[in-house]
Amino acid sequence: MVASQPAASLAEIRRMIETLPDGDRGARDAAAARDAQLTKPAGSLGRLEELALWMAAWQGKRPPQLRRPRVAVFAANHGVAARGVSAYPAAVTAQMVKNFVAGGAAVNQICRSVDADLRVYEMALETPTLDFTTAPAMDDGECARAMAYGMMAVEQGVDLIALGEMGIANTTSGAALCHALFGGTAAEWTGPGTGVAGERLAAKCETVAAGGALHGAAAAGDGLEILRRLGGFELAAIAGAVLAARLARVPVLLDGFAATAAAAVLLRVEPSLLDHCQVAHLSAEPAHARLCAAIGKRPLLDLGMRLGEASGAALAIALVRAAVECHAGMASFASAGVSGPA
Amino acid sequence: MVASQPAASLAEIRRMIETLPDGDRGARDAAAARDAQLTKPAGSLGRLEELALWMAAWQGKRPPQLRRPRVAVFAANHGVAARGVSAYPAAVTAQMVKNFVAGGAAVNQICRSVDADLRVYEMALETPTLDFTTAPAMDDGECARAMAYGMMAVEQGVDLIALGEMGIANTTSGAALCHALFGGTAAEWTGPGTGVAGERLAAKCETVAAGGALHGAAAAGDGLEILRRLGGFELAAIAGAVLAARLARVPVLLDGFAATAAAAVLLRVEPSLLDHCQVAHLSAEPAHARLCAAIGKRPLLDLGMRLGEASGAALAIALVRAAVECHAGMASFASAGVSGPA
Repeated sequence: MVASQPAASLAEIRRMIETLPDGDRGARDAAAARDAQLTKPAGSLGRLEELALWMAAWQGKRPPQLRRPRVAVFAANHGVAARGVSAYPAAVTAQMVKNFVAGGAAVNQICRSVDADLRVYEMALETPTLDFTTAPAMDDGECARAMAYGMMAVEQGVDLIALGEMGIANTTSGAALCHALFGGTAAEWTGPGTGVAGERLAAKCETVAAGGALHGAAAAGDGLEILRRLGGFELAAIAGAVLAARLARVPVLLDGFAATAAAAVLLRVEPSLLDHCQVAHLSAEPAHARLCAAIGKRPLLDLGMRLGEASGAALAIALVRAAVECHAGMASFASAGVSGPA
Repeated sequence: MVASQPAASLAEIRRMIETLPDGDRGARDAAAARDAQLTKPAGSLGRLEELALWMAAWQGKRPPQLRRPRVAVFAANHGVAARGVSAYPAAVTAQMVKNFVAGGAAVNQICRSVDADLRVYEMALETPTLDFTTAPAMDDGECARAMAYGMMAVEQGVDLIALGEMGIANTTSGAALCHALFGGTAAEWTGPGTGVAGERLAAKCETVAAGGALHGAAAAGDGLEILRRLGGFELAAIAGAVLAARLARVPVLLDGFAATAAAAVLLRVEPSLLDHCQVAHLSAEPAHARLCAAIGKRPLLDLGMRLGEASGAALAIALVRAAVECHAGMASFASAGVSGPA
C-alpha cells in the first residue's frame, strides 16, 4: 500500500501531489541507447519502442520490466442514474461486480488472456453519490477518501496498472467532467454510453448541461473541485490511483471515456500529472476522441470497444509486454553479427 | 501437412484453388447468437466481437478456439536487391535468419509474449530470384514449388496462422506486385522500406516502374502470373500458405506491406480468396494503407510498425486470443443474473 493513511481532505491530496516525482531521464536515455543497438531498422517497431522508453522513464528501471501487471476496476453508483441517463438500471453495477467476482465478465477473460492480475474495488454501491444536477456529487471528505481508496490499488510489486470502472450512469458523469474541464457544449461531450438514443440521449445531454450550469462557476477550473462536484466515487478512485502510481513509479494504462475523464481532472491541478499514463484504447464513445485530443494523448488501440470495466486497458497490456520483451530480449547488431545499413 | 504432394506447376495450384471451401455460415450464426447473450451491451466489444465471429466462420467450430497459434516467417533473397533498392545489403537476410534461430529478433520476443509457436522457413537464400527488371523473377515451377513450400506451414492442429517475411528488397517486390495488381503510378506504391530516401528511393521507384513496364502486359491481370514475374520465393510461399490455410480451415493474420501484397495476388484469381484473412496491422510503409483500401481490409493494429518478420501479425494474436476467450468464457445475462436494458 502506498498511502499509509487515508487522506481525510482534498487539501491533503493537494499536498501529496506536490511531492510526486518526475520521470527518470537517465533510465529513458539508457533505454533509447539500447534501442538503437537492436537488430531492426531504427524506429521500425513504432510505438512499441515508444512504450519501452516510457516504461523505462516511469519505472526508473534499466531495462524496464513487466512481471506483475494489475488491472483495477473501481465500481460505484451515481445519484444521477435516477434521471434515466443509462440504458441499464443502476442495479446492474452490483450485478456486474458479482459477475467480475465470479469470473464471467469480459475483463476476466481479457485479464486471463494477457496474464494480468484483476482486482475489483467495490465502493459503497448501496450509497450512490448525490445527483449532481441538484448538489455536489460528493463532499470534500468523501471525494478525498474515494481517492485514497483508489491509491490502495497500487500495491508494492505491481509494475504496470490498468485502470477502469463500472458504474451505471458514469459516462454522464464523465461528460460533465469534460464539459467543466474543457468547455464546449454539453452535447459535444455526451454520447450513447451503454446505448441510449433519442429522447433519453437528449435527457442525458440536458443533465450534463444542468451539472455544468450548477457547478461550473463554483468549481472555478479547479480539477479536484470539478471531480468532487461532478464525478463519482469510482472516478475519484481512478484519479487517486493515478497519483499513487506516479508516486510508486508504476506506469498507468487508462481505459476508455469515463476513466480518461477521471484522470483528466488532474491536468487542471498540474499539467504534467498524466505524463506517466497512456490512453490504452480509443473508445467508440464519440467524445473520447475529443477528450484524448484535449489532453494530448494518442490511444494505443482502436477497436471500436465501448464496454468500460478496464477491458481496453487490460488488452493493451499485451502491447506493453511485447514492447518490454523486445527491448530486453532482442540481440544487438553486434552480438548477432547482423550488418547495419550499407 | 496439408499438401501431400508439392505442386509442380501453377496449373495445379489453380486446380487446388477451385476446391477451397467457403466459411461456415452455421458456425458464424451460432457465434452471433451466443455473442448476443453475453454480459455486455450489444456491440460493446467492437472488433473483438467481429474477430470471434470470423474465427467461428473460418474454423467452422462452435465456439472457435485458439490453442495453437503459429507464426510463420518465410525468408528469401531477391535478384532485384543488386540494384541497391534497400538500405541494407542482401547478406542481412541470412544474418537475420540466424538471428531468428538464435532467438534474438523482435519476432522471437513477440511470439514469446503472446505464447505463439514461431517457425522460420529459409528458402534457398544463396539463390535469389532473378532481377525482375530484366526477366521474370521465377519460372512456373519455381513459383509453384515456393507456394507449395509455404503450404507446409499449415500443419495439423494449428488453429490460427500469422504470416510474415524476411527478404532484403522485398518491399520493392511488394510495390511491383501492387503496381501490377492495382495500377496507379510506381511512386504511389514505393516507400522507404527499411529506410531508403532521396536518390536511392528514386532508384527504387524506377525499378518498380521498370518491372511494370516489362511484365505488366504479359501478366495480363493474372494474379499468379504477376506473382511469378514480380514476386519472390517468400512472397509466393505466403500466397501458398494463405491457400492451405483456407483448405485447412485456419484463419490467417497477414503482416505488413510485403505480406499483404503477396496475399493480394490471390484476389486476381478469385475475389473471395482473402475472406479468411485479417490484416493484422497497418504498417508505417506508406503504401500499406493504399493496399489495405484496395483489398477492402481494415488493419487491427496501427502502431507505426514497419519491421516485417511477422512482428505485427504475431502481436495481433493477442487480440484474437482475447476475442476468443471473451466469446467462450463470458457469462450470459441469464446465467449471471445481470439485468438487460431497462
